[in-house]
Amino acid sequence: MASVNPPRGMRDFLPADKARRERVLAVIRERYRAHGFDEIETPVVEEHARLHAGIGGDNEKLSYNILRRGLDADGIRAAADDPAALSDLGLRYDLTVPLARFYATNRGQLPTVFRAIQIGPVWRAERPQKGRYRQFVQCDIDIIGDDTARAEAELITASLDTIDALGLEGGSVRINDRRALEWMLDSFGFTADERPGVLITIDKLDKVGPDGVAAELRGRGVTPGAVDAFDAFLKRPQTREYNPYGERQIRKALPEGAPEELIAHLVGLGDAVAAARPDAGEPPLVYDPFLVRGMGYYTGTIFELAHPSVDYSLGGGGRYDGMIGRFLGQEVAAVGFSIGFERIVDLVTAVEVEAAQAVVLVHDADVPTTELLAHKTALLRSGDAARVRLERRPKNLKALLERSAADGYTAFAAVRAGDAVGELQIKPLG
Amino acid sequence: MASVNPPRGMRDFLPADKARRERVLAVIRERYRAHGFDEIETPVVEEHARLHAGIGGDNEKLSYNILRRGLDADGIRAAADDPAALSDLGLRYDLTVPLARFYATNRGQLPTVFRAIQIGPVWRAERPQKGRYRQFVQCDIDIIGDDTARAEAELITASLDTIDALGLEGGSVRINDRRALEWMLDSFGFTADERPGVLITIDKLDKVGPDGVAAELRGRGVTPGAVDAFDAFLKRPQTREYNPYGERQIRKALPEGAPEELIAHLVGLGDAVAAARPDAGEPPLVYDPFLVRGMGYYTGTIFELAHPSVDYSLGGGGRYDGMIGRFLGQEVAAVGFSIGFERIVDLVTAVEVEAAQAVVLVHDADVPTTELLAHKTALLRSGDAARVRLERRPKNLKALLERSAADGYTAFAAVRAGDAVGELQIKPLG
Repeated sequence: MASVNPPRGMRDFLPADKARRERVLAVIRERYRAHGFDEIETPVVEEHARLHAGIGGDNEKLSYNILRRGLDADGIRAAADDPAALSDLGLRYDLTVPLARFYATNRGQLPTVFRAIQIGPVWRAERPQKGRYRQFVQCDIDIIGDDTARAEAELITASLDTIDALGLEGGSVRINDRRALEWMLDSFGFTADERPGVLITIDKLDKVGPDGVAAELRGRGVTPGAVDAFDAFLKRPQTREYNPYGERQIRKALPEGAPEELIAHLVGLGDAVAAARPDAGEPPLVYDPFLVRGMGYYTGTIFELAHPSVDYSLGGGGRYDGMIGRFLGQEVAAVGFSIGFERIVDLVTAVEVEAAQAVVLVHDADVPTTELLAHKTALLRSGDAARVRLERRPKNLKALLERSAADGYTAFAAVRAGDAVGELQIKPLG
Repeated sequence: MASVNPPRGMRDFLPADKARRERVLAVIRERYRAHGFDEIETPVVEEHARLHAGIGGDNEKLSYNILRRGLDADGIRAAADDPAALSDLGLRYDLTVPLARFYATNRGQLPTVFRAIQIGPVWRAERPQKGRYRQFVQCDIDIIGDDTARAEAELITASLDTIDALGLEGGSVRINDRRALEWMLDSFGFTADERPGVLITIDKLDKVGPDGVAAELRGRGVTPGAVDAFDAFLKRPQTREYNPYGERQIRKALPEGAPEELIAHLVGLGDAVAAARPDAGEPPLVYDPFLVRGMGYYTGTIFELAHPSVDYSLGGGGRYDGMIGRFLGQEVAAVGFSIGFERIVDLVTAVEVEAAQAVVLVHDADVPTTELLAHKTALLRSGDAARVRLERRPKNLKALLERSAADGYTAFAAVRAGDAVGELQIKPLG
């Protein structure tokens, strides 16, 4: 017989946790909608070929494949060497590949500039470890059809507003641009072939430091002169100083001669975010010329959401102008920002609770069902209670009331047989 | 390359549909919670062995199996004859099997009487047809740990209240009891072995009528005298008259000599529902001695939700006292009611829309991004708008405004470069 636990790496949510998750999701959904984004939904399952088209990066290897139906044992043996014959569908590992497919399917019914919200679970067969699950929720916003920095600014503004609304004020966004990264690597003398490997190493800068990066690059056997140039650049005093975001800082953080168009794009982005948050002081942006972001599909701006209370990122995203074109056969600009819901939900303590009270009716064993249900209905209809739960009086009333308070109940009333409906005495809990 | 459509039998939801679905779900969730139920969540994936333990009835055959990871081609060939070796996980086909597993896993942390809400998608590889999908949402409430008719009455009351809140007043619930069905079949002379087949035939009564049922029973080759007795009973004038629910009707609808305990249970259930809806006139219940419900796991009361606007059921459920015991090794009373969300959502037209207005800012091409975002933020912060969307002024403004109204926007403002922030003139849409 199967084990009594949920599948490995996956979780059950009990009432208190589930209620908290739903409240946080409601705030996220409401803020995203306020910023003019519209929620859509796709099936959790996509075609196997689409999930394995090389767009999903390392996540493709972590995907769950669904067995094609209708295969008998002979059919399975015949398909053993052909993944697409054995499996026609799979569980999505992100919300970006499904969004690109959705846009290709439905573009005729969508506005020219389409601002999408997607909130839902994704699945990855990661090695289970603390804080990493095989089913987890992502909250993505994407803007499709706008190739200007306004799209990035809207995404960043909506994301900062959302974490503010969750009581996580003080968030900031690290910003870079894949084109700036590529130009920088070229300027040091790395070849185009060396670029992907070099980026993987640079991505470890926060963990291993400049010396660690230089050592790993030398180990990779890339152009030695380029490593020297990069190492010297990394060790300039001004390189790792994070000053207020703006033209001066961006110019200082890049090697001499960076393309003016790129600098203007990054500066304009900061100005737009500042304009959208007029009374919030300096825009909470940090230009980080070494921010990489893992996914291979990014083509322009990339960003990552940070918060002073934790040393890991709470979300991130970037521009991926090429991806939808691969499905649609026609280039479409696209940029997205994903909030890591599982990380956020653990940090949030201050989301609003229900306004009206929730009442536990503690009744003696001899109160007839008809009387109990009449009391319950009367309370709900009078507006005196948003929720009513019936509980038989236990030996240990105190423990019951404590557990009810933990479940979010705020009041209780004792019910005896024959009590007049509508006249229960309601007392606050705790 | 994969097709550009969602997988066969599954759907994308565009913004208008998705918003409608979320509003309906919010009402359902809120009403269920008001009645003292608590939402939980389980992974969408369960262990293969659990999904194929014989509890899911015909749905087991419709389940999607996930390929065990880590098998190479040789491993796949070796596992071809052993479904459990080939597939360790599957997508859930209902919310009841996962609930039973959840209860077995977490019972130490749950109240003695546990009232659960589960809202989420399930998957069945049905032949796609109008109104039948391979991924669809179920909304279940269940009460575990209460073996009295109060549990049934709470479920029925909460369900009726919920469809009332959705503007679908006038719903009713057909009620029967598996024990009454079994006693009735015994009393006609069917053997216990014949019972499952006879029930399958009786389930078609609405479709094929009494003569059709008698003919099919004769074709099954069951005890001929029993078919004659049943046929005569079906053709009594009073058998197919649906009178007000209550003791008189229940006695009239059953053959002579029905167990008094069973009659008292069914009568008490009606009294409890009436007590919970004191000003709603006759309780909207119908005793239907031929209601079967497909699932084999039902052990007591069964019910089905009907609405005058449609000729199919909108939901249903019943008591399944045996199932959790199979996982837990200890008998636990359980009864559930499931609303067919996909059927409900098509009927609902009257769920509340947002209170504050949603504003489209139509701007000329030359308005700087900084100004646009400052306008957007000012509107959101002033409380004059719940949502703001930016749109570049198109040649055909009328079409844009019409589409915005269809998307739920209620107002618009024209924005020109240099307009003072906070002083846009907002005009109602349509």
